[in-house]
Amino acid sequence: MHPIADKVLARDMRATARACRLVDDRVGDYAAILKDLFPHTGRAWVLGVTGNPGAGKSTLTDRLIGVFRGQGRRVAVVAVDPTSPFTGGAILGDRIRMQAHFGDPDVFIRSLATRGALGGLSRSVVDVVRVLDAWGADVVVVETVGVGQDELEITRMAHTTLVVAAPGMGDEVQAIKAGILECADVFAVNKADRDGADAAVRDLELMIALGGEVAAASGRARGHSAAAHHARAQRAPSAGGEPVEGPWEPVIARTVATRNEGVAALVDKLEGHRAWLFGTEAGAARREERLREAMHVQLRDALTDAAVAALGPALEAAVHAVARREVDPYTASERLVAAFRSAGAVTPGAAVAPGGGT
Amino acid sequence: MHPIADKVLARDMRATARACRLVDDRVGDYAAILKDLFPHTGRAWVLGVTGNPGAGKSTLTDRLIGVFRGQGRRVAVVAVDPTSPFTGGAILGDRIRMQAHFGDPDVFIRSLATRGALGGLSRSVVDVVRVLDAWGADVVVVETVGVGQDELEITRMAHTTLVVAAPGMGDEVQAIKAGILECADVFAVNKADRDGADAAVRDLELMIALGGEVAAASGRARGHSAAAHHARAQRAPSAGGEPVEGPWEPVIARTVATRNEGVAALVDKLEGHRAWLFGTEAGAARREERLREAMHVQLRDALTDAAVAALGPALEAAVHAVARREVDPYTASERLVAAFRSAGAVTPGAAVAPGGGT
Repeated sequence: MHPIADKVLARDMRATARACRLVDDRVGDYAAILKDLFPHTGRAWVLGVTGNPGAGKSTLTDRLIGVFRGQGRRVAVVAVDPTSPFTGGAILGDRIRMQAHFGDPDVFIRSLATRGALGGLSRSVVDVVRVLDAWGADVVVVETVGVGQDELEITRMAHTTLVVAAPGMGDEVQAIKAGILECADVFAVNKADRDGADAAVRDLELMIALGGEVAAASGRARGHSAAAHHARAQRAPSAGGEPVEGPWEPVIARTVATRNEGVAALVDKLEGHRAWLFGTEAGAARREERLREAMHVQLRDALTDAAVAALGPALEAAVHAVARREVDPYTASERLVAAFRSAGAVTPGAAVAPGGGT
Repeated sequence: MHPIADKVLARDMRATARACRLVDDRVGDYAAILKDLFPHTGRAWVLGVTGNPGAGKSTLTDRLIGVFRGQGRRVAVVAVDPTSPFTGGAILGDRIRMQAHFGDPDVFIRSLATRGALGGLSRSVVDVVRVLDAWGADVVVVETVGVGQDELEITRMAHTTLVVAAPGMGDEVQAIKAGILECADVFAVNKADRDGADAAVRDLELMIALGGEVAAASGRARGHSAAAHHARAQRAPSAGGEPVEGPWEPVIARTVATRNEGVAALVDKLEGHRAWLFGTEAGAARREERLREAMHVQLRDALTDAAVAALGPALEAAVHAVARREVDPYTASERLVAAFRSAGAVTPGAAVAPGGGT
């Protein structure tokens, strides 16, 4: 066992921070640490929090931490911030975040900057979440800024995704809401004391109902059958008891995070999704699908790293040949793939241990 | 030459639409079409337009098209919209977009939905832009909704990136602006007749100046030396004449797109960037760097496609082994990479033609 991994499992905060840093930067013994920690992961509930800028995500996240701490749970927060090109660091991370929980040994807060590396962010988040899971977090909250492809990738690795909306944020926002509807498990209409809160809730209800109808008709969106949808639609919602089989239908909570209103009810709804995910067949199918996607991403990254290392000058030569339009990039990349594969056979003692895989 | 590629080069609009569809969906002879078209690309100026929802990107894009058409240039627009989970299609694409240019044979407008596939969007955009370049577009405008990792990826493939801002869009928006500052070549403060326009311009100016200072101090952000920065800072800005050597410093235009104000001046600033990119050594270095990134992405995608096809059941077995925590995902993916490489050597007549690459 790597000494840093050992200390993470012993809940040493400084070692955990160091492990997060190594994993995020992909330097040092990060790979050995991750391998050692992996068998000790799988216990944490990973909660993704996203939504448009200005909806009040940070304040709501802070309140959620309060509820979880009140239940005696250990909480880790991964705040995904846009990178500042000036400092190379995270913008929001520079603010004093979640001050209320500073010094609490059972709350671990870490900012990750979106560096703009292709796929680099989601890779970092997945690995940092694993470190925090191994550290002993009962809940890992992954909070993202803004709504984009990166958010979609990150919510894919969350067990439960909370989308925070606020009343009256304009028309184009509606379009974005639709874009993330398919990954939302629970909606919070925050700032629910403001004008337009009822309208926002109605809009979301309509979108959810419409999504269900269209899914039932087409049998493909949200990955469930029309029959299952209708069965679900005719049941009363689960009232905190046994999770109900069938597809998950997003639910809506109203909150006023600044006044700590509606937060406990929101947590109940989040727990309802968790119970569904871990207590039903449909939930198990969802978890397997997510795992498959994650493995594809892992494979893609491992392939790219290995190929860039193995190809070196051939890759550079291809760049120049494409620039001079001597070869098209499609043919060039096919050739690079072939070269990568043959080189792997010629050099038996490659960087990776062969064998296994079936 | 593939018959569809032939018709694209003959500027047949229906065939071009069909080629875009095949390329976007990656079905049919899309690969052959792309290979045939590639030698006929490289002429178009690719202009990325991004910015927060509500800043007025669509209206401004419409005005830009008007200016380019007035100059007799052929224009293609790729509008990247969030996917609707209900229809599987693009939301904004359903609106009647850019009506003013409907029926103009020298304006080609295409919506692409962000499907949520990992990296799928930028791949589609790159390939669709190549089709439209081959079709004969003088300018390809890639307009994106929202600000996220996907936007960053897309602006990487644009020659010139325009970031549209509007006054008074709140505090958290500032953070996001910083996140995209490093990819902005030109800023438009749209709705410049509103309160707060002066403040928005000042904020941007400060951010640009600060970015330059920090870059000069660190010599690493924006990839240029302190000496080069100071040399640039002491020169007067290029007044529409010869492009000035040294790093590009973002410039700001004020527009009121709804009243068509400031749009011609904005186009001048965009052209200034274009002249820099194609007329200076620093611009050539930037273009080469972009091309290298694009080739990495192309290689990553080709590797993933080939590996998923070659590994099949081994990949599925790895998913289940990781789910049971019998193996960690890092080791599992290393083994899959090794298996992929040896299989490539054992099967000489693989799907891709060997050879080349150096």
